[in-house]
Amino acid sequence: MRLLEQTLAAILPTNAKVMAEAQREIDYCLKPPGSLGKLEDIARQIAGITGKVRNTIKKKAIVVMMADNGVYAEGIAMYPQDITRIGADFVTSGRMGVNFLANYAGADIIAVDVGIQVEVDLPKVINRKVRYGTANFLREPAMTRQEAVQAIEAGIEVTNQAIDEGYDLLGTGEIGIGNTTASSAVLYGFTEAPIDRVVGRGAGLTDEAFERKKQVVKQAVELHRPNPKDPLDVLSKVGSLDIAGMTGVYLACAARRVPVVTDGLISNVAALTAMRIKPEAVQYMIPSHISFEPGAKLLKEITGLEPMLDMNMRLGEGTGCALVFSIIEAALRMIEEMGTFAILGKSRDEIGDHIMAYRGKFPR
Amino acid sequence: MRLLEQTLAAILPTNAKVMAEAQREIDYCLKPPGSLGKLEDIARQIAGITGKVRNTIKKKAIVVMMADNGVYAEGIAMYPQDITRIGADFVTSGRMGVNFLANYAGADIIAVDVGIQVEVDLPKVINRKVRYGTANFLREPAMTRQEAVQAIEAGIEVTNQAIDEGYDLLGTGEIGIGNTTASSAVLYGFTEAPIDRVVGRGAGLTDEAFERKKQVVKQAVELHRPNPKDPLDVLSKVGSLDIAGMTGVYLACAARRVPVVTDGLISNVAALTAMRIKPEAVQYMIPSHISFEPGAKLLKEITGLEPMLDMNMRLGEGTGCALVFSIIEAALRMIEEMGTFAILGKSRDEIGDHIMAYRGKFPR
Repeated sequence: MRLLEQTLAAILPTNAKVMAEAQREIDYCLKPPGSLGKLEDIARQIAGITGKVRNTIKKKAIVVMMADNGVYAEGIAMYPQDITRIGADFVTSGRMGVNFLANYAGADIIAVDVGIQVEVDLPKVINRKVRYGTANFLREPAMTRQEAVQAIEAGIEVTNQAIDEGYDLLGTGEIGIGNTTASSAVLYGFTEAPIDRVVGRGAGLTDEAFERKKQVVKQAVELHRPNPKDPLDVLSKVGSLDIAGMTGVYLACAARRVPVVTDGLISNVAALTAMRIKPEAVQYMIPSHISFEPGAKLLKEITGLEPMLDMNMRLGEGTGCALVFSIIEAALRMIEEMGTFAILGKSRDEIGDHIMAYRGKFPR
Repeated sequence: MRLLEQTLAAILPTNAKVMAEAQREIDYCLKPPGSLGKLEDIARQIAGITGKVRNTIKKKAIVVMMADNGVYAEGIAMYPQDITRIGADFVTSGRMGVNFLANYAGADIIAVDVGIQVEVDLPKVINRKVRYGTANFLREPAMTRQEAVQAIEAGIEVTNQAIDEGYDLLGTGEIGIGNTTASSAVLYGFTEAPIDRVVGRGAGLTDEAFERKKQVVKQAVELHRPNPKDPLDVLSKVGSLDIAGMTGVYLACAARRVPVVTDGLISNVAALTAMRIKPEAVQYMIPSHISFEPGAKLLKEITGLEPMLDMNMRLGEGTGCALVFSIIEAALRMIEEMGTFAILGKSRDEIGDHIMAYRGKFPR
């Protein structure tokens, strides 16, 4: 608990003054104000995160949290539970979906066993196992509050170590059969939104299993009645170890002032959990894609993180992060490389006045 | 006219047999079927374009068509007309918005003067000037039918030469003050959709100029009554030389079986024009982002090209293409690098049966 408390205490808002300075440089680039849209937002946000107007990324990675879910016993998943263990093997030997995308982006994978149900003895998997999978939350709480904190702190430690090693851009991903059910339950626990806005078909369920999944999510939340104002209560009663681990990644990135990219449903549920624990954490997050899962739309509305990519993807693993890394790195070249209004003999101040008059016409 | 006719005759549908083979390999990758969404679509489409299941990109470029618009005289643009000429200078010296993005993606710029209103003497600009800007289409047709064909053929020739030099992935961009007005007029000429779905604020107009722009577009189409079934009639009467040039790029890529990426409003209006001339051309196009311009949404509905990126961008120049190049190259690594269901002892045929049962549950 001490590490979590220290981390939360270290989270401050991004630097508004540096963001304004970055915006001034962005607006001096030869283009209509705001016309590079979210590329400008990224350049400005990262300036606010690092406290520097000009930024480049030196080293990037996707932290993949892996864990099993006791609720698997309720028949809410279409794949055998062994897939989590096989995933741990594949993701460290470069054969999962996230790997070819991370390879292309030049990003590393940091694979963490935070709760796979079997012993995993793979040299490249970081062993931070809190327990051998969660309990079936349709019967009992998924984990204790203490275990949830332990999983969050595992995420914080792994992230702190990565940042110490020089990583300056991170993303979050996960592997864990049954984890969309846990994500939906956490989202339902926080919001009690209509069940069809919260539960989707995950990796691909039959109609029957889909109905079952909705039922399981509703029943679990009704059984445990987690307090929506107490994120650790929601997380421990109907959550999962991978969501908790990713929550730790987000909090550590915010505390260490490193930008962190969100992926799909599960990763965004962890982002929401981190925001509920510490609202300022969202200022360090950069969204990637909108998942095909219905909960993704609800999450977008709540977190305000507007995805850049619409790829019909629903694989998880951090696949969306890998795609957005390239966009982020590209955005950071804008201030350095673009020509400016100096060519028209205009100063930064003259452009500033022009832009004040201009801003009102666009919603952003 | 002969080059255009030859090009159209060479355009055939993409190879459905090879696409099915590629899909079989994609489905054998260890992931829920379809879960990589548009990345799978790209891998399959490019297989159909090249006729090979496995593909890599060797050399890529954005063809930037540059031209001026006589309708500028009607006060429909917020920037001075010299910007087109300055843009030609900046884009070939690496200082425009598209440059830093193309640099990051490792793409070249092929800059073509297809109708800038002044003499341009820059060594890196390809001179294919058809005329010194179009006529003001509120008074007379923008150009003759013969000039429209000439501009299309300029696009075809430039593209053929690029492909001969080894470029195997192209995108289209443009620079030309006033060209969103011409694009809206072409879109309105083809569709007669409600004017608010067709005309936007371009690079950023005052309310007054915005109203004027809508009026100009309506009046121009009412004056010339172009035949919506005759794309060359629409293009020559209310279009622009850069749209015509980009139309040529699309047609040449389809004829030579090279994938080509669309950018924002203007580039997509050219894509629509190419499709109206030869419907199969769309099978060679890959969309990039959805522009902030209202016409972009209408174009998406008509062309069926579903953008991957939603960046609030409205700069043009081919900026969206540069961002999508990275996604395309990443997608092409999937079949080569991902692990397969062989790990679970399943053959391709067994997976095929599984997938047939599975498909119905997802819209794609």
